[in-house]
Parts: sequence; structure tokens; C-alpha cells
Amino acid sequence: MDFYKALSTVKSFAEELEKEWVSLDRAPGRVCGSTIRASLSVPSSPLSRWDGFAVGSIDTATASVSRPVALEIVQSEPITAGSYTEPEVAPGRCAKIMTGGLIPPGCDAVVRYEDVTEREGRIFVRSPVSAGDGIIKTGQLIRKGQIITRKGTVISPYNLCILAETGAATLPAFRKPRIGILAIGDELLLPGERLDGPKRYAGGQYFLAGLAEKVFGAFVLNLGIVRDSPEEIEKTVKSVKCIDLLVTTGGTGKGTKDHIDALWKTLNVKELFSGLNIKPGKSSRCGIFNDTLWLALPGGAMGGVVIFTEVLNEIAKIWYDRREVLTPRIRVEVSLTPDGNGFEPGSNYLSFLGFVERKDGEFMFRLQDDNIYRSVNAYIIVPPGENIVPGYTTEATLLMSGWD
Amino acid sequence: MDFYKALSTVKSFAEELEKEWVSLDRAPGRVCGSTIRASLSVPSSPLSRWDGFAVGSIDTATASVSRPVALEIVQSEPITAGSYTEPEVAPGRCAKIMTGGLIPPGCDAVVRYEDVTEREGRIFVRSPVSAGDGIIKTGQLIRKGQIITRKGTVISPYNLCILAETGAATLPAFRKPRIGILAIGDELLLPGERLDGPKRYAGGQYFLAGLAEKVFGAFVLNLGIVRDSPEEIEKTVKSVKCIDLLVTTGGTGKGTKDHIDALWKTLNVKELFSGLNIKPGKSSRCGIFNDTLWLALPGGAMGGVVIFTEVLNEIAKIWYDRREVLTPRIRVEVSLTPDGNGFEPGSNYLSFLGFVERKDGEFMFRLQDDNIYRSVNAYIIVPPGENIVPGYTTEATLLMSGWD
Repeated sequence: MDFYKALSTVKSFAEELEKEWVSLDRAPGRVCGSTIRASLSVPSSPLSRWDGFAVGSIDTATASVSRPVALEIVQSEPITAGSYTEPEVAPGRCAKIMTGGLIPPGCDAVVRYEDVTEREGRIFVRSPVSAGDGIIKTGQLIRKGQIITRKGTVISPYNLCILAETGAATLPAFRKPRIGILAIGDELLLPGERLDGPKRYAGGQYFLAGLAEKVFGAFVLNLGIVRDSPEEIEKTVKSVKCIDLLVTTGGTGKGTKDHIDALWKTLNVKELFSGLNIKPGKSSRCGIFNDTLWLALPGGAMGGVVIFTEVLNEIAKIWYDRREVLTPRIRVEVSLTPDGNGFEPGSNYLSFLGFVERKDGEFMFRLQDDNIYRSVNAYIIVPPGENIVPGYTTEATLLMSGWD
Repeated sequence: MDFYKALSTVKSFAEELEKEWVSLDRAPGRVCGSTIRASLSVPSSPLSRWDGFAVGSIDTATASVSRPVALEIVQSEPITAGSYTEPEVAPGRCAKIMTGGLIPPGCDAVVRYEDVTEREGRIFVRSPVSAGDGIIKTGQLIRKGQIITRKGTVISPYNLCILAETGAATLPAFRKPRIGILAIGDELLLPGERLDGPKRYAGGQYFLAGLAEKVFGAFVLNLGIVRDSPEEIEKTVKSVKCIDLLVTTGGTGKGTKDHIDALWKTLNVKELFSGLNIKPGKSSRCGIFNDTLWLALPGGAMGGVVIFTEVLNEIAKIWYDRREVLTPRIRVEVSLTPDGNGFEPGSNYLSFLGFVERKDGEFMFRLQDDNIYRSVNAYIIVPPGENIVPGYTTEATLLMSGWD
């Protein structure tokens, strides 16, 4: 099945997640569950923009350098940010005010301290000021009712700031999806187990778990490892309750110990896709079992990473009611592997893990070497028939959360 | 003081953090505390690269299409990934093997299933194979002793995978730095408190706390709010123990209620910088009090965000023994604010918060509008004397963690 058609099939079986209320200090990285409007204006009252004197602008209408207007300074403490002192200021008078101070009744402008002359309890204003001069108006920073955080946004430190400024102490966030990850394979060991001959430590599910948590905001249930036994796989899969997605690795091939195909028939898994035209990962499949999405990926440490990310990106759009995928994409130039070889273009999409780094201000994508594990932070997908030639540029998907 | 000179001053007073051991599933986002080398090779024994027959290459030396070599198939279960069956394969014989199966003694190559003809318990090989063909050699993916994660790396899902593949169950990580954040100001309220006239909710420390946690990997101590009272500030500051950095906002100006300057003299804070040539934030200062770095930022919701990030980026290099800052930088074109106005270039660096987004494949930086809070995910710093003209490009710093 065409890879991108398969992805859209999956989307139609995911559902928007429920919401829960989280406090601000636990909210960074969570996904906003509703479009939030400001419950109040910021500032909530007009404030002074600078240190100076609050005046009635009408009093200054005739002011000029040759005929400055004199205004009597109200005898009280200066109005400072947060102070409750709000003397009514009568015509012909003015009040000393500091940045952020509440504009007192009777005033509609603030002249800067340095723009007037102060002498014997009076100030001399040398040019007219307009109503509103020197004032941060009510709602000038945030208007009550204005959208401040959209549904589906990954909450950033900035979002926190704006929510806090409008007095919010909690916000509705989509609950974290629960993703179970199970590795299948006689040859696999968990870290800490004793290694011998034909065995190897299973790293792949740590890669997927890290992505699930850090990129897709999920709770991960590490279901460990089961042997290549249909009974063991069935038992484990049936024992997992309340998950939004089950991911298995291994067992998808056509070998004598690959049991996924037969097991799916036994369990009546409703297949959404299989036999993808993308490498690696052709044998991946996705279906519905007990109302739960089941993504079966091939074994191996990294064979399923790209398909996992692409599928999760699509599902996350539904879970979190987003239009955009969670992983940022950037334009990169692909640097060839050291031996200068490209690869065989064919009838499949080809995915490559690799590392995006900046070089002279441009983003380069270094293909992961065939036989040495290098750092990986991104991947590219090359369409059927295309070849990576010197200077080849394409879109790389970064394995990190984006710039909401 | 010159802004960048000030930053380098701060660095010399930070210290590398201690390390702690963390298990793999708690490691993503932590910073690796030592350069880690692979404790074993992957694979740890030679494995078959594909489904086929394990052979001794020497047996096939004379094989040709017209005179194929016949090898007798050892009568046993096929060798599968993870199976312990390892029959010694005598000359003239071969063993059926699946992908990932352990190469049995007596064999040094694997011919693909589809490249031979199987008949009556024998295979017919039609061309010579070389030693090593079809074999994933010991250490071909990861060599024992090879560096797999460098000190100072922010642990990614990929790093987890490689650590797990080499059998690691824990890794040394720098402990999280502890950052105390205190807002100073008579006008400030915490979310949930009752709003009236001259007060406003303090959002700025949530911005800083989010950055401290998500970008700089810190534990945040939210020290709340104190009034503009030297006694209250002193009491709170003296009560905080065991922090790596104290950040205060507010009180840095020259107004009647700005107490930081006088308080620092009273407390004998050893000043590292003050009076920076960058706006906003000129009044920021940094010093040492009780062996702890104290960064005093101006009040306001966002006036200190850029200086906070720049200072933390420098300190984090020392805390985590990194060369690179934690925040990624990308080249952006600055889109002007709607009214098309630039700003007044002067003798200071000017910082602008804003939003980086992709447009036709390029990164655009939308300056934060003067009077409406828009989303913010990055900032730019414009050097003294430069102006933002149409088409102006510069480096933007993203307020997120990077691509280690």
C-alpha cells in the first residue's frame, strides 16, 4: 500500500483525547485542550508608561515654550506601581507618578519628568500633550476576550507567561496518550540481563519510548520483551488495558519465527495497512484490535523509527486537534556518505536516519553511516525513483518537538 | 558594561555540576555527565545478514554456473535469531540460517536463499563467495570501546537506543541545577489572588521558570513574590539554601521603590556586571552573594527573557561542560511590523522577542508587536548602530532545546 495513503487511513481511526486540568507549573510541554481567551485585560487599568506627572491634557492645550502652563503638584506620596493612593486630581493640578503607577481620576496623560521643569511645588509644561500620551491603556497588552492560547498548541514558557498574566492558575490540557511498547524476539535482552552468544540487547524500544515521551507527549508503558511465541505475544497483548496505541517491534517478516501475520488472523485484527512501499519498514502493518490501534513494526534497532514517527505525527493531529505535525521540518542539503556512493533508487520510498547540523549557516544532513552508529536527530524520505546526487536538497524531519 | 563582555565574566564564576546515576527511562533530556564508550561490540558475535545458508567460502571457490558446487545441508533446525543451536559445520556442508542467526563454527559466509538451488538435502552454489559475505561482523554496528555518547550531550531518544544496545542500564548525568526565581514588586499578584486596581498578575517568572526547566534542564524553586521592601527581599534571599542560581525580577531601576542597588551594597554582593549596553534590560546586574550567582533582572513580563537566556546559555556551558549553547540558532529574515516602522538604532544592542515560522521554505522572524502579545518562540539581538531594513537577515535564537 502507498505509504502516504496508509498514513491517512490510520488517522481516521484515532480520536481526540479527553482533557484534564493542569496547573501552570506542570503545563510546559502539555498540549492545550481548548482555545483560551483572556479572562481580563492587561493592564486591567490605565498605567503610567514612564516616570513623570499625571495631568489633564486639556490643561496643557495652550502650553508653549514662551508661555508654559503651570500645574500645581498634588501634595501626596508619588503614585508608584501597585500603590492604592489615587487622589482625585482637580483641574490645574497634577500628580507625581512612577512607571506602572495607576493613572488617578481627573488625569488622561503623563508628561515625562525630563520634559517639564519643577519649581516650588509646581511643574511648567512647555507643549500640549494629547489625551492618552504616556499611558498604557487598559487592555493595551492583552485585550479581555482575545485568544491567548489556541487548542492544540504545545504549551511553551511564553504561553505560561501570558496565561499567568491574565490570572489563569490552571489550564485544560489533553491528557497524555498511553502508548504500550512491546519488543518481540528470541534474540532480545533487556539492559542488565546477561549477554551470551546469539543474543543482543534491545535498544529499539528505548528509541521509540523516548520519541513517544519527548516528541509526542505520551506516557509510555514499557511492556518489555516477549519471545517469538504466538502464545506469549497473544497473552501480553491481551493483558494490556487502557492504552491508546500498542506498538510492537519484530515478528512482521515472512520467516519461520515471524508470527504477527498469523496471529493477526487468529485475533481478527482489523487491518488498516500492510505491505508499505517504503524501506526500511515494508513489513510494517497497522490494525485495530480490541478498539485499540496496533502498530506492528519490524525488529532491529532502528528499522521502525521513521514509520513510527510518521504514524504518530498523523495520529497526534487527531489526538491533539492540530493541523500541523509535531516535528519541525527544515530544508537540508544531503552530504554524501564518505565513500561517495548514493543508493539504488527504485519503486519504494527510501527513508534515511541521519544528523542535521549547521555548516556555514546552512543545514546539512549527514546520512547515518551504514555500519557505524552515529548520532541521529532527523530523517529524510526520498520518493521512488529519486536519487541522492551531490547538492541534493530535501526536507528533513527533526526528531524533536516543534516551534509552537 | 559591554553585553558580551559581561556574559564572559559570568562564566568564570560558574562551576561544573556533580553527577548522578540515572536509569535509561529517566534519562531523556538529561545531560550526559561523562563521555561513554561502548562496553561491548554490537553485534557481539557474527550474525547472518539475510535468510540463506551458512557456508565455508573455501568450499565455493570453484563454483560456476556450468559446474555448481553441491553442499549437503546439515540436518538440524534452521539457525534463527537468538537460537543457541550451533552445529559445527564440516567442510562440504552448509547450515540453513535466518537473518540475525549466529554464524556456526566452520562457516565464514552466508549465501542468500534465492541465489542457490535446493534439492534433495543439498544446495547448489553457482558462483564463489568470499569470506565475510552475508555476515554482520562482530562490532560492525558498534565497536567495543567506541565513543557512543559524549559528555555534555543532551540525551536524545537515539542516545538511549545506543546505550541500551550496548547493555547500559544507567548512565552518569549532571545533576539538575537548582534555580530560584523571585519576583519583586508591590504591584504583583500570583495567579489565583484577587485582582484590583493597581495590581497585575506576574507572568514573567513563569516564562523564566519554563525556560529554566525545559531549555536548561533545571529544577525551579518558585520563590513567589515579595513587596518592594529591602527587608522582605533580604529575608527571602537569605532564606534560600542550596541553589546554583538566584534570579530576581524587578527593583533594578533608579526609582524610589527600586531597592536592588542599595541592597547589594548592604549585603556586600560582589558585582560581576551592571549597566549593560543592551535594551531592554540595561538595568540588569549579576553578582555573587553567599557563593551563589545572583542575576537581578528588571521587572515586567518579558524585559529579562533575553538576558536570562543569554546568561543561562553561558552558565550552562560550564555546568554541563559543553562548547555549544543549548538553544539552537537559525538564520532568519525579519519581517517588519505591520506599520512598516523600524526602530531607532543607537549605541546599544537591541533585543527583540518574536516568532520564527517557515514561509515558502525560509524562516521568517515576526517581531513581537509593540502592543499585542503574540506568540514568542525566539529572539534576535541587533548590534549597536544597525537598523532593521526590508530583507534584513540575522541569527535568531530559538527558545527551545537544541539538536544534540
